[in-house]
Amino acid sequence: MSKGFQDDSLMLHTDLYQINMAETYWEDGMHEKKAVFELFFRTLPFGNGYAIFAGLERCLNYLTDFKFTESDLDYLEHELGYKTDFISYLRDIRFTGTVRSMREGELVFANEPIMRIEAPIIEAQLVETALLNIVNYQTLIASKASRIKQVVKEETVMEFGTRRAHEMDAAIWGTRAAYIGGFDATSNVRAGKIFGLPVAGTHSHAMVQAYRDEYTAFKKYARRHKDCVFLVDTYNTLKSGVPIAIQVAKELGDEINFVGVRLDSGDIAYLSKETRRMLDEAGFADTKIIASNDLDEYTILNLKAQGAVVDIWGIGTKLITAYDQPALGGVYKLVSIENDQGEMVDTIKISSNAEKVTTPGIKRVYRIINKLNNKSEGDYITLEGENPQEEDHLKMFHPVHTFVTKFVTNFEARDLHEVVFENGEQCYITPPIEEIKEYVKTNLELLWDEYKRSMNPEEYPVDLSQRCWDNKMRNIQEVKQSIRNAAPRS
Amino acid sequence: MSKGFQDDSLMLHTDLYQINMAETYWEDGMHEKKAVFELFFRTLPFGNGYAIFAGLERCLNYLTDFKFTESDLDYLEHELGYKTDFISYLRDIRFTGTVRSMREGELVFANEPIMRIEAPIIEAQLVETALLNIVNYQTLIASKASRIKQVVKEETVMEFGTRRAHEMDAAIWGTRAAYIGGFDATSNVRAGKIFGLPVAGTHSHAMVQAYRDEYTAFKKYARRHKDCVFLVDTYNTLKSGVPIAIQVAKELGDEINFVGVRLDSGDIAYLSKETRRMLDEAGFADTKIIASNDLDEYTILNLKAQGAVVDIWGIGTKLITAYDQPALGGVYKLVSIENDQGEMVDTIKISSNAEKVTTPGIKRVYRIINKLNNKSEGDYITLEGENPQEEDHLKMFHPVHTFVTKFVTNFEARDLHEVVFENGEQCYITPPIEEIKEYVKTNLELLWDEYKRSMNPEEYPVDLSQRCWDNKMRNIQEVKQSIRNAAPRS
Repeated sequence: MSKGFQDDSLMLHTDLYQINMAETYWEDGMHEKKAVFELFFRTLPFGNGYAIFAGLERCLNYLTDFKFTESDLDYLEHELGYKTDFISYLRDIRFTGTVRSMREGELVFANEPIMRIEAPIIEAQLVETALLNIVNYQTLIASKASRIKQVVKEETVMEFGTRRAHEMDAAIWGTRAAYIGGFDATSNVRAGKIFGLPVAGTHSHAMVQAYRDEYTAFKKYARRHKDCVFLVDTYNTLKSGVPIAIQVAKELGDEINFVGVRLDSGDIAYLSKETRRMLDEAGFADTKIIASNDLDEYTILNLKAQGAVVDIWGIGTKLITAYDQPALGGVYKLVSIENDQGEMVDTIKISSNAEKVTTPGIKRVYRIINKLNNKSEGDYITLEGENPQEEDHLKMFHPVHTFVTKFVTNFEARDLHEVVFENGEQCYITPPIEEIKEYVKTNLELLWDEYKRSMNPEEYPVDLSQRCWDNKMRNIQEVKQSIRNAAPRS
Repeated sequence: MSKGFQDDSLMLHTDLYQINMAETYWEDGMHEKKAVFELFFRTLPFGNGYAIFAGLERCLNYLTDFKFTESDLDYLEHELGYKTDFISYLRDIRFTGTVRSMREGELVFANEPIMRIEAPIIEAQLVETALLNIVNYQTLIASKASRIKQVVKEETVMEFGTRRAHEMDAAIWGTRAAYIGGFDATSNVRAGKIFGLPVAGTHSHAMVQAYRDEYTAFKKYARRHKDCVFLVDTYNTLKSGVPIAIQVAKELGDEINFVGVRLDSGDIAYLSKETRRMLDEAGFADTKIIASNDLDEYTILNLKAQGAVVDIWGIGTKLITAYDQPALGGVYKLVSIENDQGEMVDTIKISSNAEKVTTPGIKRVYRIINKLNNKSEGDYITLEGENPQEEDHLKMFHPVHTFVTKFVTNFEARDLHEVVFENGEQCYITPPIEEIKEYVKTNLELLWDEYKRSMNPEEYPVDLSQRCWDNKMRNIQEVKQSIRNAAPRS
């Protein structure tokens, strides 16, 4: 490990402006004012009808380890020139806030708070960049994985993307997110070790090249590995790879399990059909066909439409980089702050882009589940203190097209947040990964199919309570008024 | 840090098949046979005319630290079921090979070896995934950064993408690559600390919201920070943000340097022109305008065409995720292996996709620089042992359209490789980052402008020597013959 990484921590994994703002708050003595920030995104990725939240485990680790190292402080003081009194303050800072968060594996939609951070403003500000970095990427990949899983259905799908991932953290946290989103295994051994994921893989073209010919290579592989998947496209899939795999399997008989052959190039639709025919004719009806090579939900749908016969899909680049939309635009916005009288007051960010106007106030988010059919009617965002469960007839209306309304009765209003940190103490442990994965499946059952299709899904309702909506309108008017009053003449 | 990361190393940051192949080689007693792999990509990213190599520093760290931890071995043995004798072997494995590599900041083109790894096959195989993971991402980002730098020209350009990066490693290594590629600073403080990059940033919308109004916020910020860049779009850029920034600057006079205002939303072309006018009229002709908000080389070109007046560009998402092409398809191919007689023999991978056929043999790559004008005539790939400098009239021909030829005289054949590891010992230290950045500039001067334009550049020649080309053709014929001879009847 090179010198720069000695005494490394994630405390400086933030934008410089966070530290400059922290210093401003501290200098001004307002750094301990309680602030509430909410983390959300404004648009669902990939044109999908839902996203899957992932990243909480890493966020909890980060908040728990929130402490500057001496080399961090030394850098801030001597390289960046922050003053000694401020550095002394930072030396003792810890995260003391309260965090409400969705659980990993929760379905999440645009404009609803995934996390709500209540903390002294200096702490809440300093954690922004890392939380966004974590949640944006992992949620993006879990969501992409879910799209692919919707298309492969009950077939097996494996994550093979490490070499194309954006550096190492992305490879391991991305494959964990993919597993949450519905993938069955990963090729990344480190992710297997750290997160307990199933790992998969057999051999590459290099091994065939090293032994010069496929016959030797497959036989050598089989000496040590009873379960054999042979890669058959090093030279010529149908003339050499598949026939030789069959020959080796016949010669070795019960000494191996001829689990499958892998196609990694060429016309997968044609090759898979021919390969299936050859395997079946040779008496290997149970031997699987594994396909890889730049696949995603679009190519898989297309291959299926052409009658490709694939049992197991290996997905690399297109998943781990979220190739068709490689960023989720999660943001972290101040919604409330303590004033000089110790009262919490709402804050708002106005923008000429209407969709960038934030919703002020400390909020909660509920999923409104119809008890008659156990399907979700939509999500319902309230101000803190409201309880939608108390309503007999819950009025839901579109927050932009407000004339679109419906009334819901006989429902369960499920609180989508869990308190994960309370006054600086972690009070929630992420469940085992298998439970998170199951939780996604359970959640998806709450949604009508129209919200889940991969192309042009219906828009799932995310509505504001009447009080929350009224409060937003009032805040907008107040800001507009204050701009009129306060702006100097230029 | 959670339990899974205790005793973590990067040794398992690989695909499972590498370990399965390693075991096959070891079981067969051929694991110490010398193998030569080359790392290269087949297509330049973004339709650009060149790429910029980055990632070597991280690769060197990885190779130096190549040693399994006890928990790695424990996982392999007890969770994945590898046998004890193989695990004992792995316990002592180190990287003992020799690596020739391009220097970071080198211009690199399709189908030329960026790195050449010569090592016992078991070691060379085990390092594949991590080396690709590192080189693919960092080279991608350095190249994207260079495209953006070509468009902003002498204006300042800063990297602001941490929150949208693919997890944490991507944020810091990506911003280092961006700096190499031509960026001037980063917002990521940790990258500043680790790599010695200049860091930049002032305040966000949250600070304005926290103080309720811009006047108070700007004044408070200025109390502690002499160099002030005010973010002016929290409420209304032209009616409130810019006029109030000017008012505060006038009131504080020499107490601050009114370095700039930042526009982060809305119509940057219009807003920047109006802002410039307002600043100039108020006597702040030296105050800079900083623009951000999903910018890349395309939007910047477009903004400039509209007459936008921007001095400093802040680039986030589109750079750090390489948004329009988020993966570089680097591969790692076996080109030669020791046979049972101890001789090195060539290996080749055939494919129905002609561009996927590898070029066999141990190779070198030279840049052919015309001494008359100090411009590069192209790159020239030879077999080991050839020396193009000895030629009076060097024949260069296109490796696909072989009738496209030229003869070059009075040239320097510059070896693009440096020996960075020799028999397991690192023998090269990456230069200081400023030198790498300068090296890029020097290299770009070798290229005619036609290769450097961001849209539809001319194709830079990457040619094979006659011997190298002949050798490839011979290998292809041999494999085709052996397929005809060896394939069983199916």
